[in-house]
Amino acid sequence: MEKKPLILVTNDDGITAPGIRALIEVMTGIGTVVVVAPDSPQSGMGHAITINSTLEVTAIKVSDGPQKEYQCSGTPADCVKLAINELMGKKPDLCVSGINHGSNASINVIYSGTMSAAIEAGIEGVPAIGFSLLDYDWDADFESLKPYVKTITENALKNKLPKDVVLNVNFPKRPKGEIQGIKICRQAKAHWVEKFDKRKSPMGRDYYWLTGEFINEDRGEDTDEAALEEGYISIVPTQFDLTAHYAIQQLNSWDFEL
Amino acid sequence: MEKKPLILVTNDDGITAPGIRALIEVMTGIGTVVVVAPDSPQSGMGHAITINSTLEVTAIKVSDGPQKEYQCSGTPADCVKLAINELMGKKPDLCVSGINHGSNASINVIYSGTMSAAIEAGIEGVPAIGFSLLDYDWDADFESLKPYVKTITENALKNKLPKDVVLNVNFPKRPKGEIQGIKICRQAKAHWVEKFDKRKSPMGRDYYWLTGEFINEDRGEDTDEAALEEGYISIVPTQFDLTAHYAIQQLNSWDFEL
Repeated sequence: MEKKPLILVTNDDGITAPGIRALIEVMTGIGTVVVVAPDSPQSGMGHAITINSTLEVTAIKVSDGPQKEYQCSGTPADCVKLAINELMGKKPDLCVSGINHGSNASINVIYSGTMSAAIEAGIEGVPAIGFSLLDYDWDADFESLKPYVKTITENALKNKLPKDVVLNVNFPKRPKGEIQGIKICRQAKAHWVEKFDKRKSPMGRDYYWLTGEFINEDRGEDTDEAALEEGYISIVPTQFDLTAHYAIQQLNSWDFEL
Repeated sequence: MEKKPLILVTNDDGITAPGIRALIEVMTGIGTVVVVAPDSPQSGMGHAITINSTLEVTAIKVSDGPQKEYQCSGTPADCVKLAINELMGKKPDLCVSGINHGSNASINVIYSGTMSAAIEAGIEGVPAIGFSLLDYDWDADFESLKPYVKTITENALKNKLPKDVVLNVNFPKRPKGEIQGIKICRQAKAHWVEKFDKRKSPMGRDYYWLTGEFINEDRGEDTDEAALEEGYISIVPTQFDLTAHYAIQQLNSWDFEL
């Protein structure tokens, strides 16, 4: 009998979120599961890490099952660092993050705590997948996603991920049975146009809420946004070498005069 | 006479840091400067944005000069969003971030608040440069870097940056006159090996400090780390399309069975 893979599960919505509970259920059917997740929501944390304050970790058990669980006071990237280097005793075979309540497709990957956990694992040499659902509702339907989560995870374990690549998986918001399939995509070129909602406090002090509108100017059919719009699950192979290699030659023509 | 460029200056060490003061001095010699920077240090914030709490902005004046200055309660990415969409009234011609007290070379770009500000500007279509010095000392020598900051900035304004590319500039820690020149580089493949310093609070509660050792396993001569080691200033063209395009074909061979 093959040895069961050791799987680290984390997220950015916090350890009690329904999305991570669904992910844990699938993973306990595949391997030995350790959960290390934030004790409170960490959405929009990007790749933040905690260097100017301390981290607290508590063993807890949020739901039944064979998994070990820890909650951590830090960011998703902190959770992964702590899990791999302190709590698990050895490198896991896989790290999965999510299932996020909300999209991490296209430019959202940059702001995503869910994907920062997956990327952190990738940097540390652990194969990793981030899962997100295009539905911010706390009671979103994660149940019908489980067979897809399972086959994507089993493929990653069996076929091995390309070196220094993690997967950014997004699920469309579709009723059960209406998901069209899975597409491998590139990240759509899109951005948010911010609108700041300016208000006055009871003490007369100005403050702002950040809001915004998502603008996708990329009409490519090979993008994650296009796939999701058509009801497909998108998978973007995602890297952490940010070098724009193609731009090096152009910059070499610059003339730096002092 | 040509119109002076409108330049947004920000950082992650906070608006009073010596590094941003040096950057403001250089920029006021090149264009019209607006400073929007965090009111407290934001190192390690990655690309975090503030969506679950409010933002406060205050007009202040930290040092003499023609620049307008605002401090903001948010992250570096928040500062850029607020500046471009609310405070400046129009898109700046350039955004510069730094000069950071400490390295943002190689994998540090992922955790960097300094670079997240530059990347946020890039996403919003504003040419951007992040500057960092490999010296964490508050009293580091920024003076001798100024001619280099000036020529790099003037080149970016004159030659235009490649589309969707921002610059990650790192300065070696070298005494005046010992900087060897400027090299265009790729991001070195390196990572941090974490060590968690576990302690007990006076109340008997365990907590951790995140510490770590930087490991550069990349011996390539074309990397930022190699250039910096030899005393060169490194410039890495940096992108925010994280797609590993070369991996798409390999993933298309996976068999997703439900």
